[in-house]
Amino acid sequence: MSTTGLVVDRGLEGVVVGSTVLSNVEGTIGRLTYRGYDMDDLAPNVSFEEVVHLLLYGHLPTRDELDALKHELASRRALPEPLVAAMQSVPKTAWPMDVLRTIVSGLALFSPANNKGEHVSDIHAAIELVAKMTTILASWDRIRRGLEPVEPRADLSHAANFLYMRTGKMPAQIEEAAVNTYLVLLADHSYNASTFAARVTASTRADLYASVTSALATLNGDLHGGAASASYNNLVAIGSPARAEAFVRDELAKGHRIMGMGHREYRVRDPRARHLEAIAQKLSNYRGDTNWYAIARSLEDASNKVLQEAKPDRKIYANVDFYTAPVLADLGLPGDEFTCLFACGRVAGWGAHALEQLHDNRLIRPQATYTGPPPGPFIPIEQRSVALTGT
Amino acid sequence: MSTTGLVVDRGLEGVVVGSTVLSNVEGTIGRLTYRGYDMDDLAPNVSFEEVVHLLLYGHLPTRDELDALKHELASRRALPEPLVAAMQSVPKTAWPMDVLRTIVSGLALFSPANNKGEHVSDIHAAIELVAKMTTILASWDRIRRGLEPVEPRADLSHAANFLYMRTGKMPAQIEEAAVNTYLVLLADHSYNASTFAARVTASTRADLYASVTSALATLNGDLHGGAASASYNNLVAIGSPARAEAFVRDELAKGHRIMGMGHREYRVRDPRARHLEAIAQKLSNYRGDTNWYAIARSLEDASNKVLQEAKPDRKIYANVDFYTAPVLADLGLPGDEFTCLFACGRVAGWGAHALEQLHDNRLIRPQATYTGPPPGPFIPIEQRSVALTGT
Repeated sequence: MSTTGLVVDRGLEGVVVGSTVLSNVEGTIGRLTYRGYDMDDLAPNVSFEEVVHLLLYGHLPTRDELDALKHELASRRALPEPLVAAMQSVPKTAWPMDVLRTIVSGLALFSPANNKGEHVSDIHAAIELVAKMTTILASWDRIRRGLEPVEPRADLSHAANFLYMRTGKMPAQIEEAAVNTYLVLLADHSYNASTFAARVTASTRADLYASVTSALATLNGDLHGGAASASYNNLVAIGSPARAEAFVRDELAKGHRIMGMGHREYRVRDPRARHLEAIAQKLSNYRGDTNWYAIARSLEDASNKVLQEAKPDRKIYANVDFYTAPVLADLGLPGDEFTCLFACGRVAGWGAHALEQLHDNRLIRPQATYTGPPPGPFIPIEQRSVALTGT
Repeated sequence: MSTTGLVVDRGLEGVVVGSTVLSNVEGTIGRLTYRGYDMDDLAPNVSFEEVVHLLLYGHLPTRDELDALKHELASRRALPEPLVAAMQSVPKTAWPMDVLRTIVSGLALFSPANNKGEHVSDIHAAIELVAKMTTILASWDRIRRGLEPVEPRADLSHAANFLYMRTGKMPAQIEEAAVNTYLVLLADHSYNASTFAARVTASTRADLYASVTSALATLNGDLHGGAASASYNNLVAIGSPARAEAFVRDELAKGHRIMGMGHREYRVRDPRARHLEAIAQKLSNYRGDTNWYAIARSLEDASNKVLQEAKPDRKIYANVDFYTAPVLADLGLPGDEFTCLFACGRVAGWGAHALEQLHDNRLIRPQATYTGPPPGPFIPIEQRSVALTGT
């Protein structure tokens, strides 16, 4: 590989690799906007469906446009029967993110367009993915508990229908609102790792199924979406608010990070954390059991205190994953499905970014410095020895 | 997003985003090396299994090491029964790359480690993926033709076993050698788009199933691995060598590229194209039908001639995808499976790159310039109008 190229940070930190009109993360002032709308305005005021419209069509919908989108989403909720049957043959111990990724990838197999050799990447393909992801998650949630999946209901909002498909019961208004706002908050976040992966995939002219599968694969890791599940595991391990500080000291002594604390882009508190914290507080009051919220609150305070003792000049804040944990725990979602619900929100952004990439495409194909052995002669197998060739 | 970052080419062309010891592409002299071994030495001399060992363990194997690896590969060839059943429920018109991606993703669901919540990313996980990809491809190839899959045979080489699982018959030695060399040639190529996607995915600490799924999604596009299938479609469309030049003039007049011609990294002929061309010539003589090879040869000459008329100062050469088409066509593989066999070779590199990334990891999370509307006030739904909000 040419070593005459421009060498940049290998984590691409601070490296601007492209542009987007979809969202803006202003890390120094803690502002997140979707197409110019401040998250502080969106989170309390809009439905997830409105954000899907905003990201995919470029503007907040009128009432008629919103009705049309809701109708389209509702009509695309049901899964192909063979995919449901396939889920039923999966070991119940399988990891939910692995299931979600596999079934989303499998949607391509039942796409009439793909089966005609046409790989359609348009707004409707993106809506299809948004519509079906929550159905996959709710179906797997039931199948792993030994229950039959519940058919989606066309008269419910995206958020309410998800909760209904999970439990078979109508959710309380506060639960529907919590899921809705969670999905709004998570819908996009500029070139995060999974979105960047979706764009790398789209840049080869792969279709939306491929791009979103790639994003789902990338969200898996605990340095990205997996942090929400890891945060939950922390709450479980801590058990009660009074134990938070000892937990933090223990983890740091072991050289571990506190999952959900800190974010590469934000120098102040993640604006999404504030909204989620408020929801966590409300939900825990509604449930009459404030334990999850109280542990999280106490863990954030303890992390701040202990980390500031170690590095007085550097403050570290809760990020979106941190307060995801008490919210989704209070909604009764199992901890290992948190990253899946993150994906159900972020798929709106993945679809919009893949379409943005395809609209004015350029193959994303970087270079690497070769740091291996210099060119040498070939050694026939008879002349190789472990001593000679050992790494 | 900070706009104070370093702004680089959005295709990352000429941008060095990391390092690797695995392979080196020297585009100006047309040299490709794997850990210091020149492809011109490897292609005629080694088995694909030796290359897998070289990439994963860091050195060419001794006879004992090779035997151990062959044994491990053979023992990992069979697929979980529910995945075979799932393939049998897929429409026969499904796109083979979509099937391969989905079933590889699905392997995670049957991994004992993943089902215990441990996501093991080690050399054995990589060998598992290498071993099973050809089984998936051969199985789907038969299922889509209405045939039962053929069980793998432990006594055959990786290449011979693939051909045997496809046809149920022992391949000729020349066919086995062709597949073997094809897989050796395709096994790695530094930070190409799919390998970069695998590294982005691995950088979140996702496991190897996730990283390889992401790579498979990225190989889909016709600006990357899909070009091999697109090259085949050209050979079919041309039909006979004499029509190649008219085809090239037609395509260029329509503003199309000639698939398989040109490569971002090579300024001379892709060294892999030479080896594949020689194989194509031999195979076509063996078959007694030299049509595919002759069309390809004629298409490369015509492309060179016509492109040089348009841009006399710029020569464009056949790349690896170009001569993949006559080789795999002569082996009887359907054109839409070419990219799948590419993946069966490249998975060795994907696994090695994902492990290399994880070994000294740093989250790959770039920045983007925000180019959308400036922050503005929120508009309640009753006050929105199509005229006001239209893009």
